[in-house]
Amino acid sequence: MTYCLALRLDEGLVFMADTRTNAGLDDVRAYRKLHVLRPAPDRVFVLQAAGSLATTHEVLDRIARDLAAGDGRESLASVAGLFEAGLYVGRLSREISASHREALSASGSRGTATFILGGQIAGEPADLLLIYAEGNYIRASRERPFLQIGESKYGRFVLEVAASAGAGVPSAIRVALASMMTTARATLSVGPPYDVAVYLDGTLDVSEFRIDAGSAQLAGLGEAWERLMCEAVDGLPDVTPVPATPGPPDVPAGTR
Amino acid sequence: MTYCLALRLDEGLVFMADTRTNAGLDDVRAYRKLHVLRPAPDRVFVLQAAGSLATTHEVLDRIARDLAAGDGRESLASVAGLFEAGLYVGRLSREISASHREALSASGSRGTATFILGGQIAGEPADLLLIYAEGNYIRASRERPFLQIGESKYGRFVLEVAASAGAGVPSAIRVALASMMTTARATLSVGPPYDVAVYLDGTLDVSEFRIDAGSAQLAGLGEAWERLMCEAVDGLPDVTPVPATPGPPDVPAGTR
Repeated sequence: MTYCLALRLDEGLVFMADTRTNAGLDDVRAYRKLHVLRPAPDRVFVLQAAGSLATTHEVLDRIARDLAAGDGRESLASVAGLFEAGLYVGRLSREISASHREALSASGSRGTATFILGGQIAGEPADLLLIYAEGNYIRASRERPFLQIGESKYGRFVLEVAASAGAGVPSAIRVALASMMTTARATLSVGPPYDVAVYLDGTLDVSEFRIDAGSAQLAGLGEAWERLMCEAVDGLPDVTPVPATPGPPDVPAGTR
Repeated sequence: MTYCLALRLDEGLVFMADTRTNAGLDDVRAYRKLHVLRPAPDRVFVLQAAGSLATTHEVLDRIARDLAAGDGRESLASVAGLFEAGLYVGRLSREISASHREALSASGSRGTATFILGGQIAGEPADLLLIYAEGNYIRASRERPFLQIGESKYGRFVLEVAASAGAGVPSAIRVALASMMTTARATLSVGPPYDVAVYLDGTLDVSEFRIDAGSAQLAGLGEAWERLMCEAVDGLPDVTPVPATPGPPDVPAGTR
């Protein structure tokens, strides 16, 4: 599995992705799932992928081939808006998984993938989309400023309570990391290194960095997060049974 | 869905269950999923159920019928150990879901259920088991002092970092509640009221209480938990990109 998330802030976009992939526990590897794409000087995209690694690799290869073709075909350089870039990526993803479906069905796999696509085209507002395996998309909003793909359950709560469009980039990175570390601590299918990308509105440039698996930085962050979480639990008020009455019974009388 | 969890402490057992069930969003109800069973004076059990509500109801009815039969058949009053009680519940569950499988298959449902069973039989140690839909079981341990059934992903992290066998009951209730509130905030399929049961080793008695959905107590707990979680995120150290280098590229050259 994989866990990727992205936050839509008033001042820009923050992306974070893990790097773990596995085909069974015997085949665990690190693969990059956050890709910065600069198909033309007037635009920059960040593409995050979850699901079939084979499908996402073929999507990236087809994106590159369409860009290199120079025959007027649709590509990430030709699309006029970010939603069209989303539909384009969705179409590639759908076509690729369909082309392998029959062969994959024997092994029970569907070969589908989901994507988060964010970025900006000059003259258009920055945007952030989640592209479903079916090729359609939804957009992050000010009210719901985050998107997730992959193993999204473990780290959802942190985003629900702490993600805010009004936050600054450093604060948003802390929220994203808290959600990522929560997930990685709860499931072996998600793990470091973590790739981070930050886009500031209007800049048409993305800054990237990686938080390494064995780094002192990540160890310190993980320890801090576990300690802070235990302190949070300790900070809850005492639960006094007031009144000390159980709910109504729901079992056959003979068993009580 | 459902979320039930239980903690195995040095001094006893703590159980917590939500009450939400749904067959689609149009059919959301509150059903008790935590059941205290007192089949004989020398024993007490707490049974929590997740999965098919029909199967869990039939399991409870069959438990009661076997207890009432008085013909020497196996029942919760006759089993000599908690693991045998677990195998007995597992057998009922498997038989019931098998008996409905053909009819249910038309609707895509499998009618399976999983259970947490804890308690004590006089002369035996207290014990805590998770019973799979297949009828076999695993036990909580001092190293892994919690069990979960149902929607277990959202609230796993809190248990992983904060659940400890050495904790006292009030502290364990806080941990369980933190995990429960985390889950309910992240998914509509889990919700209050919450049933709580506490078993102290050697007492052969269970105390129960319910945390009501609209209560000031629960509102205060929920607000405190969200505030504490935001403070925890804010308490993380700043993530400075040191060194500010992205991971190796993994995309075809033409796209960068």
